[in-house]
Amino acid sequence: MSDKKIFIFDTTLRDGEQVPGCKLNTKEKIELALQLEALGVDVLEAGFPISSPGDFHSVDEISKIIKNATVCGLSRAVQKDIETAAQALKHAKRPRIHTGIGTSDFHIKGKFNATREEILARAVQAVKWAKNFVDDVEFYAEDAGRTENEYLARVIEAVIAAGATVVNIPDTTGYCLPYQYGEKIAFLVNNVKNIDKAVISCHCHNDLGLATANSIAGIMNGARQIECTINGLGERAGNTSLEEVVMVIRQHRQLGFYTDIKAQELNPLSRLVSDTMRMPVQPNKAIVGANAFSHSSGIHQDGFLKDATTYEIINPEEVGAEGSKIVLTARSGRSALAFRLQKLGYDFNRNDIDTLYERFLQIADTKKEVMEDDLHSMAKAYTGSTVNA
Amino acid sequence: MSDKKIFIFDTTLRDGEQVPGCKLNTKEKIELALQLEALGVDVLEAGFPISSPGDFHSVDEISKIIKNATVCGLSRAVQKDIETAAQALKHAKRPRIHTGIGTSDFHIKGKFNATREEILARAVQAVKWAKNFVDDVEFYAEDAGRTENEYLARVIEAVIAAGATVVNIPDTTGYCLPYQYGEKIAFLVNNVKNIDKAVISCHCHNDLGLATANSIAGIMNGARQIECTINGLGERAGNTSLEEVVMVIRQHRQLGFYTDIKAQELNPLSRLVSDTMRMPVQPNKAIVGANAFSHSSGIHQDGFLKDATTYEIINPEEVGAEGSKIVLTARSGRSALAFRLQKLGYDFNRNDIDTLYERFLQIADTKKEVMEDDLHSMAKAYTGSTVNA
Repeated sequence: MSDKKIFIFDTTLRDGEQVPGCKLNTKEKIELALQLEALGVDVLEAGFPISSPGDFHSVDEISKIIKNATVCGLSRAVQKDIETAAQALKHAKRPRIHTGIGTSDFHIKGKFNATREEILARAVQAVKWAKNFVDDVEFYAEDAGRTENEYLARVIEAVIAAGATVVNIPDTTGYCLPYQYGEKIAFLVNNVKNIDKAVISCHCHNDLGLATANSIAGIMNGARQIECTINGLGERAGNTSLEEVVMVIRQHRQLGFYTDIKAQELNPLSRLVSDTMRMPVQPNKAIVGANAFSHSSGIHQDGFLKDATTYEIINPEEVGAEGSKIVLTARSGRSALAFRLQKLGYDFNRNDIDTLYERFLQIADTKKEVMEDDLHSMAKAYTGSTVNA
Repeated sequence: MSDKKIFIFDTTLRDGEQVPGCKLNTKEKIELALQLEALGVDVLEAGFPISSPGDFHSVDEISKIIKNATVCGLSRAVQKDIETAAQALKHAKRPRIHTGIGTSDFHIKGKFNATREEILARAVQAVKWAKNFVDDVEFYAEDAGRTENEYLARVIEAVIAAGATVVNIPDTTGYCLPYQYGEKIAFLVNNVKNIDKAVISCHCHNDLGLATANSIAGIMNGARQIECTINGLGERAGNTSLEEVVMVIRQHRQLGFYTDIKAQELNPLSRLVSDTMRMPVQPNKAIVGANAFSHSSGIHQDGFLKDATTYEIINPEEVGAEGSKIVLTARSGRSALAFRLQKLGYDFNRNDIDTLYERFLQIADTKKEVMEDDLHSMAKAYTGSTVNA
C-alpha cells in the first residue's frame, strides 16, 4: 500500500502571530507567507481578518500573492466574522474559511452560557454561512480535547452534513495524553457516519509538552491534516512544532505517511521566523535548536566519531542545519581532543594525546568550552617541551 | 488502589551540565544540588567523576552535603570509572553507582567492535564491580531505544541477577515513538523473570520532541523512575523536562501515580538553573516559559476572563509562576480592553468601550503590544473629548 499524505496546515501567521511580541506588519507577513509556501505547506492560515484592519489587509495581500497553497482565514461562528474573512480571501486561488465554536462544557457554560443544542445549531449555521462564499470550509470544535466524545461526534456529523470539508479537533488547552487524543480521533472515525466526506485535522497545544505526540497519535488513528507552527510558536506554551511532526513522519516510515515539506528548509526558515518575530528558540529545541546536533560528553563524542549513527538519528544536512559539532568541555574525552587537534593540522600520536589530555582537563575545568586558541596554545607548548626534552 | 510513586531522578547536574556552555564550578553545583533536594527529587545524579578532577571534586562535595536524596555518580562499564565513582560517593548517605554499556547493534558494532555475548559479560562484570562498593547499583543499557527487545531482556535479566537495583532503559538518540517505547517496557515486564527485583527507569531524549510522551508511556507500562532535567537540558535536543512529566502526572490523576516534587518550586528553580547555566528557556516552553500562562488572542482572553478554566488547565500559582497575563495586542478583543482599563481604575460603560476599541485597534496595529501608558493616554483623550462634547 502506498504512503498516505499528511497535509501540513501552517498557522505561524495566525496562532503564532497572536503571541505577545510576535505581531507582524503586512510586509513581514507576506515575506514569511512566501517562505512557508516555498517550504511546501499545504495550507497557510494567514490571519484572523475581523480582528483588526491591519490583519484584514495582511490576509488580503497574502491571498493575492500565494500561488499554490490554500490560504485560510479564521473566524468565530459569527456572521460578520465569516463575511469579513470571505472578503479578505476574495483574491485567493484556493480560499478556505476556518470557522467554529467551543464544544466542551467548559466553553458551552463558562463562555457562552448556552446549551449543547444551541451550540450545535450555531455550528451548523456558521458552516452554512461560510459555504455561501467558498467551497472549502474548515470547522473547528474548540476545546474538543475536553469535549465528551458522543456530543463531539454529533457536532462533527452535523457540520459535515452542512458542507464542512475539513473538521478540526483542537486540544485547545493542551490537556490530552496521546492515547486519549488518539482514541478521540478513532471514536470519530468509527461513529460519524459521513466522516469519509471530510478530512480530520489535529490542532494540539503544548501546555504539558505533548503536542507532537498527540498529533502523531491523531494521524495514526485516522486524521490526515496537522495544524502546526514553525518553532512551535502559539498561545501560551505554543502549538505543535511543524519541524518535529515532519521529522517524526520522515524518521518513522513504517507509519506509512509522507508530507510535501522540503526538510532542508526547516533550519533556515526557523531562523527567519525567530528573527522576524523576535522570538528566541532555546538551544535544546528539537531539530532547530543551536545544540540539536552538538555532541559534548566524552562517551557520546567517542561513539559519534567512530560512527555517527551511534548518537545521531538525523543527518543535520537533511534539515538544513550546520554539520554536527564536537564541542570540547571538561566532559570530553581523548578521542574528541585528538579529532579537534587533527582538524587544526596537528599530528600527535597516542602517547602525545595522553599527556596533552591531562593539560586539556586542567584548562577545561576552569572554563565552559575549550576553544581553538586554547588548543593552539596547548599544542605549541607541548611541541616546544618535547623538542627541548 | 492507592497511587503509585514515580521516583524522580534528576540529571540536570550530569546530562544537563555536559551541554556546551553549561559547565558549572563546584560552588554552583552544590547550590543547585541543594535546591534540587528542596524541590523533592528522589535521586540526584551529581556528575561523572572520572571525567575530570573538577567533576570528581563536585560529586565528592555534593555527597557530603545532601541529606535525603540518593546521590548518584555516572561511570562506564570500566573498572577505573567505577572505582572513581565509588571514591567520589564515599561520603554520601545514600550512594548509587550508575554504570552501563551500549546494547544496540549500532553501539556494539559501531562503537565497541564487539559481539552481543561480550557486551553481556561486560555489563554483568560492571554491576559486580559496583556492588563491591555500594548496594544501590543502577545499570543503563545505552541506546536501549534501538536495541532488539529479546537481547535487551537477556541483558536486563543478567544484570539484575548480578545485583542491579535499578535498570535504566534509555532512548539515547530520542528515536522511539511513545507506543514503541511503551511496548519495550511492557516486553521487559513480561519477559524478564526477575524484573520484580529492580525498578525500571526511563531516560528519554527529545530529538523528535517526544521525550515527555515516551516517559509517560514508560510508566504506564511498568516503569517507576523517570530521569529528567530542569528545563529539559541535556545532550543535543535535551532530556525529558522534569517540570513536564511532573505536571502530566499531577494533571492526569486517573493514571494512578504521584511524585514527591513540590510543584510551586518549579518556576523559581527553572529560572535559577537557566541563570546559573546561562541557558535560555524559550517563551513558549511548557510550564516554565515566560508566555506559558499568557493569553493574547481576543477569543482566548474573552473566554479566560469569563472563566479561567476555558483556556487554562494549570493554575500558574500551582507551579510558582506569576499570575496569568492578559496582554493587549491587535488580536485582543473588547473584553480584554475593558478588563485592563478597569484594572487601571477607569470606569467605562459598554458604549464607551466600543468607541475606545476602534482607537485601540489603530494603536495596536502599529505596535507589538499596547502598554499601560498607551491605555492612560487613550482613556484621558477619550474622557476629555466626551466632557467637551
